Amino acid sequence: MADWLAALDRRAALRAKAGLTRTLRPRAAGDPMIDLAGNDYLGLATHPEVVAAAGRALAGYGLGATGSRLVRGSTDVHHALEDELADWLGVERALVFSSGYLANLAAVRGLVQPRTLLVSDAHNHASLIDGCRISGAETVVTAHVDVDAVAAALAAAPGRPAVVVTESVFSVDGDLAPLAALHAVARRHGALLLVDDAHALGVTGPAGAGAVAAAGLAGAPDVVVTATLSKALGGAGGLVAGPAEFVRHLVETGRTFIFDTAPPPAVAAGVRAAVALARTADDLRAELADRARHAVRRLGAAGLTVSAPDGAVVSVTAPGPEAATAWAADCRDRGVAVGCFRPPSTPDHRSRLRLTLSTGVTRADFEHALEAIVECAPQSRTEVLP
Amino acid sequence: MADWLAALDRRAALRAKAGLTRTLRPRAAGDPMIDLAGNDYLGLATHPEVVAAAGRALAGYGLGATGSRLVRGSTDVHHALEDELADWLGVERALVFSSGYLANLAAVRGLVQPRTLLVSDAHNHASLIDGCRISGAETVVTAHVDVDAVAAALAAAPGRPAVVVTESVFSVDGDLAPLAALHAVARRHGALLLVDDAHALGVTGPAGAGAVAAAGLAGAPDVVVTATLSKALGGAGGLVAGPAEFVRHLVETGRTFIFDTAPPPAVAAGVRAAVALARTADDLRAELADRARHAVRRLGAAGLTVSAPDGAVVSVTAPGPEAATAWAADCRDRGVAVGCFRPPSTPDHRSRLRLTLSTGVTRADFEHALEAIVECAPQSRTEVLP
Repeated sequence: MADWLAALDRRAALRAKAGLTRTLRPRAAGDPMIDLAGNDYLGLATHPEVVAAAGRALAGYGLGATGSRLVRGSTDVHHALEDELADWLGVERALVFSSGYLANLAAVRGLVQPRTLLVSDAHNHASLIDGCRISGAETVVTAHVDVDAVAAALAAAPGRPAVVVTESVFSVDGDLAPLAALHAVARRHGALLLVDDAHALGVTGPAGAGAVAAAGLAGAPDVVVTATLSKALGGAGGLVAGPAEFVRHLVETGRTFIFDTAPPPAVAAGVRAAVALARTADDLRAELADRARHAVRRLGAAGLTVSAPDGAVVSVTAPGPEAATAWAADCRDRGVAVGCFRPPSTPDHRSRLRLTLSTGVTRADFEHALEAIVECAPQSRTEVLP
Repeated sequence: MADWLAALDRRAALRAKAGLTRTLRPRAAGDPMIDLAGNDYLGLATHPEVVAAAGRALAGYGLGATGSRLVRGSTDVHHALEDELADWLGVERALVFSSGYLANLAAVRGLVQPRTLLVSDAHNHASLIDGCRISGAETVVTAHVDVDAVAAALAAAPGRPAVVVTESVFSVDGDLAPLAALHAVARRHGALLLVDDAHALGVTGPAGAGAVAAAGLAGAPDVVVTATLSKALGGAGGLVAGPAEFVRHLVETGRTFIFDTAPPPAVAAGVRAAVALARTADDLRAELADRARHAVRRLGAAGLTVSAPDGAVVSVTAPGPEAATAWAADCRDRGVAVGCFRPPSTPDHRSRLRLTLSTGVTRADFEHALEAIVECAPQSRTEVLP
C-alpha cells in the first residue's frame, strides 16, 4: 500500500480505538425507523404538495439546472422561490445556494472588508467557522452565548468594521442565541450581525419565519440571515437573506455563488411549495414545542441530562463516545433513529444523543421512541473527559 | 442607507463602469434558446430515463435527504450511485457531495498534512483555489499547463509531502492539462496528483470515464479525481474518487461531507441513470468532438481567435468586457445562449465568449448558432487590456 494511504489507515485505527469511527448506514425507501435523527421538522420532505411541485418542475425543466446561475442555471422557479423567501423573512432579497455550507461561506466572506474583525460564537457550525477561516479576517471566538464577551471583543477593536457571527438555534444542543441582546451590542459598536437560522426557520417565529423574525430583527439593515432549505423545508440547499445591496454584492462577487451549478429547478420548486405550507403551519409548530417540553420532562424524570430546547432539537448527555455509539445502536435495534454526536463534531468535546423532533412522526411513535431511549440509556450518565 | 450598504453600492458602480456588472436572467421551462452556454454536454438533464428515475426516487423517498449522510441522509440510492461511479472511473471508491465546490474543498483539504506543499495550476477553478486557501497549506501557483514549472516547484521542496492540483479540461478555455506528464513528474517526486475532471467526465475517455482514465491513470494509488454530477451527467452535486482509504478519510473527517445535508435521493437516482446512459454514449461523444472541430474551423475562418478544444468547451476571444457583453446580448437576441466570461472570472483577465457544445442541441440549431456568433462578432478582435 502507498505510504500516504498507510498513514491514513493508521489515523483511522486511532479513531476506532477512541470510539470515533463514523459509519454510513443507507436506508431504503419507506424505511420503517422512527426518525428522531433527521431535520425534516415539519414532515414536508414527503408532503404530497412538495413532491408534486418538484415532480412538475422535473418534467418541465429536466433534472439539473445545467449551469451556474449567471450563465444558464437561473430559472423562473429559482426567482419565484427567492421572492417568496424574501417576503416570508421580511427582507429585501434572498439568494439560494446549492448548499447551506456554500451560503455560509458566501455570507461571511461577503461581509468582510479590509481590517474586519469577526466575532464568532464557540458553538458555531463548521460552515460558519470555515467562512471565517477562508475570509482571512481576524476572528475572535467568544464563549458560547456570552453577550458580554462579544461586547468586550467589539470594544477592544474601536473603529474597525466588525461582524458578530452566530447561529440562532444551535445545531448540537438546540439552545437559542440571545439575538436581541447580540444585535443591541453589535449596533452600539457599529457592527453587523450574521445569524444562521437553519434550525429555526419554519420552526419558530411569526408564521415560522425563524428566530431572527421572532427577535424583531427581520429586515434590519445591519442584519444578514442564512439558513438551509434542507431542514424544516424538506429540500436541499441554502439561502442568504438581507438588504438588496448585499445580495447584489453576492451575485456579482460571491465565489460560491458564481462558480457553482444552480440548484435543480425541481428542488427549488419543491422548496417553494414547502415555504407556502410552512407559513401556515402554526399548528405543527405548537405540536413541536409541546413535544420538546414533553421530551425534556420524560427524559429528565428518568435521570438523564437534557438540554433546554428552544426549537425542535433536544440534546441528551452521554457518558462518552463509546457509550453514545452503543446507546444509539440499541435505539436503532428497537426501530428508533437518533443522532449520535461525538467529538470532534461537538463544540465541548462531550458526546450526546441528539434528538430532532418532527411532526412527520406520529405522536404514538414519538412516545414509543422516548421510552426506547430511556430503556437503552447507559448506566453511568457522567461524561468522563479523556 | 446604512454606511456598509452605501459602500457596497459604490463598489457595484465601479464594476458597472468597467463593464463587469453581472445580471441574473431567469429562463422558463421549455425555453426556446439554442443553448451553447450550459454544461449539459450529452443532453441528459432532460433525458426521459433520467427524469423517470428521479421521479421514482422522489415518490419513494420524498424531496430532501432530511439529514447529513452520517446522521440520516444516506439512502440506498446514494450508495448505488457511488458504487457505479467507482466502477465507471476504475477507482476503489467514490463519494458524492451536494456540490462540486464542496467536493473540491474536501479533496484538497483531505490531502493536506503538516508541511504539505500544494502546486496549483494558474487556471484552476475557484473551488480548487479555495480548497488550497482553506487547507492552510503553502501553495505555489505555477504557470498554466507548465510541467517544467511543476517539476521545479516539487524539486525545490525535497522531502516534503506535496500535491499537484489541476483541472483536466479547463473550464474557461477548454484546453487539456498534460495529465500523464504531470503524473510522471509528481510520482518522480513522491507527490500526489489531484485532478478535477468536471468538464471531461462523460465527454472524453474510455466509455466516457474522463480525461484521467484517458491518460491511463484510472485507479492509480497516487491519484485522486474530483468531478461534478451537474455537467455531462445532467444532475447536481460533486464527487471525489480514489483509493478506499482516502474516501474513508473523507467520510470520517471531511468537514464539507460531514456537516452538509446529503444530496436529494431523487438527484442521486437521476444521476445514476445518467451514468448508465453516459457509459454507452460513444456516438454522442464522437458527435461532440466533430462539432468542436467544426466550430473551430468555422469561427477561425471568420477571423475569430478560437481555443483548441480538447472536450466540448470552445473559447472565443473578445476585445474587452463591454464588447463581450454586447456580443453575447446580440446572440441572445438571435435566440442563441452563449457564456460571457469576463474578469475576474477569467484567469488571464481577458474576456471571451465560452461556447459549450451539447448533443441536446440539434445539428441544424448548432450550425445556426455558429452563424449568429460570426454575424454578431465585434469589429475589433483585439483585447485591449485596461
